[in-house]
Amino acid sequence: MRKGESTRQRIVGQAAEISSLGGVQSLTIGGLADALSMSKSGLFAHFGSLETLQLATIDEIEAQFTREVIMPALREPGGVRRLRALAEGWIDWSHGEKRRGGCPLAAAAFEFDAQPGEMRDRVARAFEDWRRVLSRTIEQGKAHDIPVACDAHAIVFEIFGIYFAQHVQSWLLSLPNAREQARDALDRLFVRAFDKANA
Amino acid sequence: MRKGESTRQRIVGQAAEISSLGGVQSLTIGGLADALSMSKSGLFAHFGSLETLQLATIDEIEAQFTREVIMPALREPGGVRRLRALAEGWIDWSHGEKRRGGCPLAAAAFEFDAQPGEMRDRVARAFEDWRRVLSRTIEQGKAHDIPVACDAHAIVFEIFGIYFAQHVQSWLLSLPNAREQARDALDRLFVRAFDKANA
Repeated sequence: MRKGESTRQRIVGQAAEISSLGGVQSLTIGGLADALSMSKSGLFAHFGSLETLQLATIDEIEAQFTREVIMPALREPGGVRRLRALAEGWIDWSHGEKRRGGCPLAAAAFEFDAQPGEMRDRVARAFEDWRRVLSRTIEQGKAHDIPVACDAHAIVFEIFGIYFAQHVQSWLLSLPNAREQARDALDRLFVRAFDKANA
Repeated sequence: MRKGESTRQRIVGQAAEISSLGGVQSLTIGGLADALSMSKSGLFAHFGSLETLQLATIDEIEAQFTREVIMPALREPGGVRRLRALAEGWIDWSHGEKRRGGCPLAAAAFEFDAQPGEMRDRVARAFEDWRRVLSRTIEQGKAHDIPVACDAHAIVFEIFGIYFAQHVQSWLLSLPNAREQARDALDRLFVRAFDKANA
């Protein structure tokens, strides 16, 4: 990796961590320069504007998610097990050590939803892509062990619900059993949708 | 209502509307003064600081919610019907005409969750109170038509999930059928938890 590349990577990695705590909107060139012991002008050399940096931060978070959640799930057999790996992976990932305030994309979904612009479009695209990954896994799983009558959109809706309920109960309400409740809710969903406990 | 009171009310009402679009964090004394055609100093006379104004805005939103969702539900018979009125009322309320960007408290839950301070505590309290209203409705409903074995926390978790999935799909993803999906998910939850369709 060339030096410029590796510095850029260090910047977006730090930006992703910071935005887990305060949201992508809390990022400032100054704050980030301080956290990285860099000059503001050095940072500006990599990202011409705060919005460019915020967009690159979303790219970085999505890349981490692909690497740490989607890729491992693709190694599971298609069908119920892969879907379960994706849904559980999402929750576990959001509690990872680089995410001391939970998934910054989830926060961004609520931060930017009513503010038209490039950031909103970028965050929406991340969630549309993620919805598509989940629904395709269900549709393609019908060639395996997922019942053909399964309503993919309804199941994706419920997985989203479990994720976001868990986010609020973990990070806002600090309920110690939020992840366990999410896992139980996933269990119940999987049993009733696929008739398979702990798939 | 004295003049001071009614001006104060006009300010927090406007602040609640604005925060539906940009979040409570987007409120500024200047922006609000412009929207109300008031002077900044006039606004400062009512709220000494931006944080005081933000806290008063949360109070106002909660008061609207109590008046428009909780009070009408209390007129329903105890048990399944009251719980349903609360859950559906929450979703419908968040699409009300004063909330063109959805429920500002839901956005605030994600904005402030990782920022320790009075705002975070205030928002957390609003959601704790709301969780308590829902679980009490379930517990007290056991004297009526709610099965005694019902796990109130699990059901409240699922209602939260349906609400937040619907929020993301409505306001970030602009999916036209998000509310319908939420209503369907509530139907399924109520059928399996209480064995009563369209209660």
